[in-house]
Amino acid sequence: MHTSPAAAFDSARVLITGGLGFIGSNLARALVDLSARVTLVDSLVPEYGGNLRNIHGIEDRVRVNISDVRDEHSMRYLIQGQDFLFNLAGQTSHMDSMKDPYTDLEINCRAQLSILEACRKYNPQVRIVFASTRQMYGRPERLPVDEDHLLRPVDVNGINKMAGEWYHILYSQVHGLRACALRLTNTIGPRMRIKDARQTFLGVWVRQLIEGRPFEVWGGEQLRDFTYVDDAVSAFLAAAVSNAAVGQTLNLGGPKPVTLSELARLLVQANGGAGQFVVKPFPAERQRIDIGDYFADYGRIRRLLGWEPRTSLRDALTRTLAYFREHREHYV
Amino acid sequence: MHTSPAAAFDSARVLITGGLGFIGSNLARALVDLSARVTLVDSLVPEYGGNLRNIHGIEDRVRVNISDVRDEHSMRYLIQGQDFLFNLAGQTSHMDSMKDPYTDLEINCRAQLSILEACRKYNPQVRIVFASTRQMYGRPERLPVDEDHLLRPVDVNGINKMAGEWYHILYSQVHGLRACALRLTNTIGPRMRIKDARQTFLGVWVRQLIEGRPFEVWGGEQLRDFTYVDDAVSAFLAAAVSNAAVGQTLNLGGPKPVTLSELARLLVQANGGAGQFVVKPFPAERQRIDIGDYFADYGRIRRLLGWEPRTSLRDALTRTLAYFREHREHYV
Repeated sequence: MHTSPAAAFDSARVLITGGLGFIGSNLARALVDLSARVTLVDSLVPEYGGNLRNIHGIEDRVRVNISDVRDEHSMRYLIQGQDFLFNLAGQTSHMDSMKDPYTDLEINCRAQLSILEACRKYNPQVRIVFASTRQMYGRPERLPVDEDHLLRPVDVNGINKMAGEWYHILYSQVHGLRACALRLTNTIGPRMRIKDARQTFLGVWVRQLIEGRPFEVWGGEQLRDFTYVDDAVSAFLAAAVSNAAVGQTLNLGGPKPVTLSELARLLVQANGGAGQFVVKPFPAERQRIDIGDYFADYGRIRRLLGWEPRTSLRDALTRTLAYFREHREHYV
Repeated sequence: MHTSPAAAFDSARVLITGGLGFIGSNLARALVDLSARVTLVDSLVPEYGGNLRNIHGIEDRVRVNISDVRDEHSMRYLIQGQDFLFNLAGQTSHMDSMKDPYTDLEINCRAQLSILEACRKYNPQVRIVFASTRQMYGRPERLPVDEDHLLRPVDVNGINKMAGEWYHILYSQVHGLRACALRLTNTIGPRMRIKDARQTFLGVWVRQLIEGRPFEVWGGEQLRDFTYVDDAVSAFLAAAVSNAAVGQTLNLGGPKPVTLSELARLLVQANGGAGQFVVKPFPAERQRIDIGDYFADYGRIRRLLGWEPRTSLRDALTRTLAYFREHREHYV
């Protein structure tokens, strides 16, 4: 049996890198409700996911530390005394990683090494959950994709995230750190980036829809799975308190894969039937790094931690739209 | 059909990173015999494989440029106008990578990215062969290990080499560079490092043996395969001129795997029966990153390029000992 998150986080000291970002801030909300003492580290680099609006209403219950995970010195200090580290900071844009591979390397590889070195030296007892990504599987050779699928990344971001994930597993195996990695698929929900497609294409769709403009669906036939952010948060909490998770890489997944065209229709439905979209061919520069169909087999985390996605895609889209209709001005 | 190396290299401009090292210098010897115009880049970092003695006798037929692959500016200049790039420079010590992961990252990841960026911008036609390693397979789950085996590196070096290899494949797929990667197993022969075990444990054995001291065999039952350096050089030459190799990762292998104890006996035999060894348990710090048995399935490179190892292990050991008996003073 694994410990119940509720008990484990009461008064626990928790550090979240990327804590002002989409998943980090939703995780912070759950943690303050469990009476954890939460510190959020975020660089607020404008191209990334950090947004102070994401902690609206919990400002007084968290500590915010603006710094960059590339800053070894601040990370070394901040990691000390923490019971849990949710390591979510990352460069997530596939296109940016191809244009500027060095920045992606510094954040997704080098900073990860320095965070792990700091844990090893100054806080070897901390429990670490790393936010990894399905991106490293590349073009699937079978579906659904389980964790034993070959890793064949199709962009610099996928390669660097792969290295960053492996550092975590290695430091667990060799140095005894209690680290694990969750390979996220498309996570959606309130507080995601909707300004552009750097985090997820769905962000742009949502923005266009609530601003009353038609959104573009590229391709349309690709199958994808989607995790609602509250379900992703549950997975992070469960993984953090489980001994069985240590040293593991675990896929998250969604309720049922849909094509992008189906998703577009569902989104319009969730918007009360209002809104339009156009299906367009894939732009050439994205075609080269597209991966075709993807959906995850999340059997391993279900067996180990009892986790599964609980929110239907319809509910996920409805709640997401409701959030951004109310808070749009802070996200565009 | 692939072009014959002999014709393709006549007057060709060839850059070898790590060119004063073990494999690089043997490759340079083959290339000057094929009338290539060879430039060797090497940092001569004392802990690595570079040694000016390695080009003894061909000094006047190669150009030596002392610089580090981490130096973007020199690499950007040197890459221009080259027909071939044999990209062999790397940090190879597993133990050093665990003690100083950043240096390993700078050489095996960041420098690889900057070399590829330089090729993309200033010489997109160059043909590139990258020296990769079996190390990234980790502990094999089946034997022999083919290229579809999962990558599960067990040290920082393996993770970073994995990223470095993937950059090459990615730049081939996305940017159209003509790059491929050879996953080397244990390569042995004249000009290898024998000062310590940073390159291969066999180096230390050879040194002890020719200095008349007993050598230590750790464990002893692990199966390994060994490629004689001349065979490795043939693979590099064949891969460089083959269109079929572009975008591929190809295992090298050896004639027949042997246990380390058998290898030790063969080495003593190759030494005319003179010499002793002791079998010792694995030191704890190495045990944690040991991978058990390994030997490669090299069927893919045999099918694509017609390559196979041609030198028997006995001949390989005999020639290696003969070389170091004659040149020992330059290597210890």
